[in-house]
Amino acid sequence: MAAPSEEEGAVGRRYHQRSTAMLDVPFLPFCAFLGTLGLLCVAMVGSWCQHWRGGFSLDGSSRTFNWHPVLMVTGLVVLYGAAALVYRIPYTWSGPKLPWKVLHGSLALGAFILTVLGLSAVFYFHNSQGTPNMYSLHSWIGLGTVLLFSCQWAAGFGAFLLPWAPTWLRVLYKPIHVFFGSTILLLSVASCVSGINEKLFFSLKNGTMQYKLLPAEAVFANTLGLLILIFGVLVVAALARPSWKRPDSDSPDSRQLPPALGAGRHRDCAGNAEPARLQTANPAAKNRN
Amino acid sequence: MAAPSEEEGAVGRRYHQRSTAMLDVPFLPFCAFLGTLGLLCVAMVGSWCQHWRGGFSLDGSSRTFNWHPVLMVTGLVVLYGAAALVYRIPYTWSGPKLPWKVLHGSLALGAFILTVLGLSAVFYFHNSQGTPNMYSLHSWIGLGTVLLFSCQWAAGFGAFLLPWAPTWLRVLYKPIHVFFGSTILLLSVASCVSGINEKLFFSLKNGTMQYKLLPAEAVFANTLGLLILIFGVLVVAALARPSWKRPDSDSPDSRQLPPALGAGRHRDCAGNAEPARLQTANPAAKNRN
Repeated sequence: MAAPSEEEGAVGRRYHQRSTAMLDVPFLPFCAFLGTLGLLCVAMVGSWCQHWRGGFSLDGSSRTFNWHPVLMVTGLVVLYGAAALVYRIPYTWSGPKLPWKVLHGSLALGAFILTVLGLSAVFYFHNSQGTPNMYSLHSWIGLGTVLLFSCQWAAGFGAFLLPWAPTWLRVLYKPIHVFFGSTILLLSVASCVSGINEKLFFSLKNGTMQYKLLPAEAVFANTLGLLILIFGVLVVAALARPSWKRPDSDSPDSRQLPPALGAGRHRDCAGNAEPARLQTANPAAKNRN
Repeated sequence: MAAPSEEEGAVGRRYHQRSTAMLDVPFLPFCAFLGTLGLLCVAMVGSWCQHWRGGFSLDGSSRTFNWHPVLMVTGLVVLYGAAALVYRIPYTWSGPKLPWKVLHGSLALGAFILTVLGLSAVFYFHNSQGTPNMYSLHSWIGLGTVLLFSCQWAAGFGAFLLPWAPTWLRVLYKPIHVFFGSTILLLSVASCVSGINEKLFFSLKNGTMQYKLLPAEAVFANTLGLLILIFGVLVVAALARPSWKRPDSDSPDSRQLPPALGAGRHRDCAGNAEPARLQTANPAAKNRN
């Protein structure tokens, strides 16, 4: 393919810079929106189980099961999403990286603990009711997601937090960790969607309350499923957005910032010095000035 | 954040180049694997409906419904994925882009037609049986995905195939089209997973064939759901992989190749001339030499 002429390049760059400016979204307001959306998901799944499904208990009844959706949405979706976004907060870009690595790992560990508790709730409920475990597609995807998450956390801890992990291992593993970070969130969202769908078919069977008649509970829980889906897609998009990525000093690959909505790529790869790149690469930082 | 020293940068780059080389996967073998996986999904959903669900018909019975999963998986997952990957084929990188735009749009249109037929099958079945439409979370996500897909196709046709679309519009809309391209595939995979889960709960109710007893059909369809999920995630990962993206001459943003597994970013942003970049940016091309 022939390289474009200087003039074509200049015109394209001008258009691209204009489109980039139009597509730029400050991180912090977007992050606040994501936080609100995540809290709304947690509040809605809690309200669903409390208001329509009889609340919570530890007696092995369906009220024990109710801990499952609440803990999974809170841990494997919302808290996991928060952990994934730590390095996108502009304040974390300056100073040593270790404290933010610890925060990232701690939030992920918290998400993992809630996830394991959520799994325990459904296994305890099934065992108390004599219901078999691990037969539905939802359960297969859900358990697979949790297993991937456990490998991800252990490998991330070993590669990035243990001081004796060699640099070549960190550099080799980092893109794999990043890829599975987004993949696990997408799998957990798919698990939530199939789980909510399944639970509504189980619960809404009686004459006037059938799922197919779309009672208030069905509208509420369907809406919850959609919000969880939107939250997951927006977190993955935020993770991929070039101008929101932390320019790492410890890996040259991050000296070029990647594209998500394509914005900022021209600037990010312009090869400016670090401080200048920090300034231009991050619209949120710009907006704070 | 202080910029790394020259020495740190050199060491990091050396490690990164080594890790990049280790992570490089040639596109064509990966694409052949994806094609095989996609065909396997189509074969499995067809076999499921033919062997366990009674086959196909147009009489409004459950055999009419069977067209729904087959057409949705074939159109909205596999053919859609093929359309999305057109620009990743190295042969498409040389010469004029228009023929490949037409191929991309035609495959997407084919996927959309199959999708609409798949929707018609389930609406016809529901109406014949007196079952309400659009009450489950699966149906909400599925219809939302198809509506997004229709907007995506129409906007893509208007912006990229109609000759009078202004350059500033193409440059502005391209990253949005790319973002929704991946998002729609992820939503369609979530729809498939929840739909397969739902169908199995509907179908497997009888004493010895209950879903919870995990009969052969349940194992088969659960496996199909997992394969669809893996297919979707791998296509989205392939779309995001930097060294597999077509370096466009018509938009400067593509002069910097984006990250997925992070590999190749350093090379891709090195600012080499177009022919050199074509060579270095594409491992598949390298491997063909």
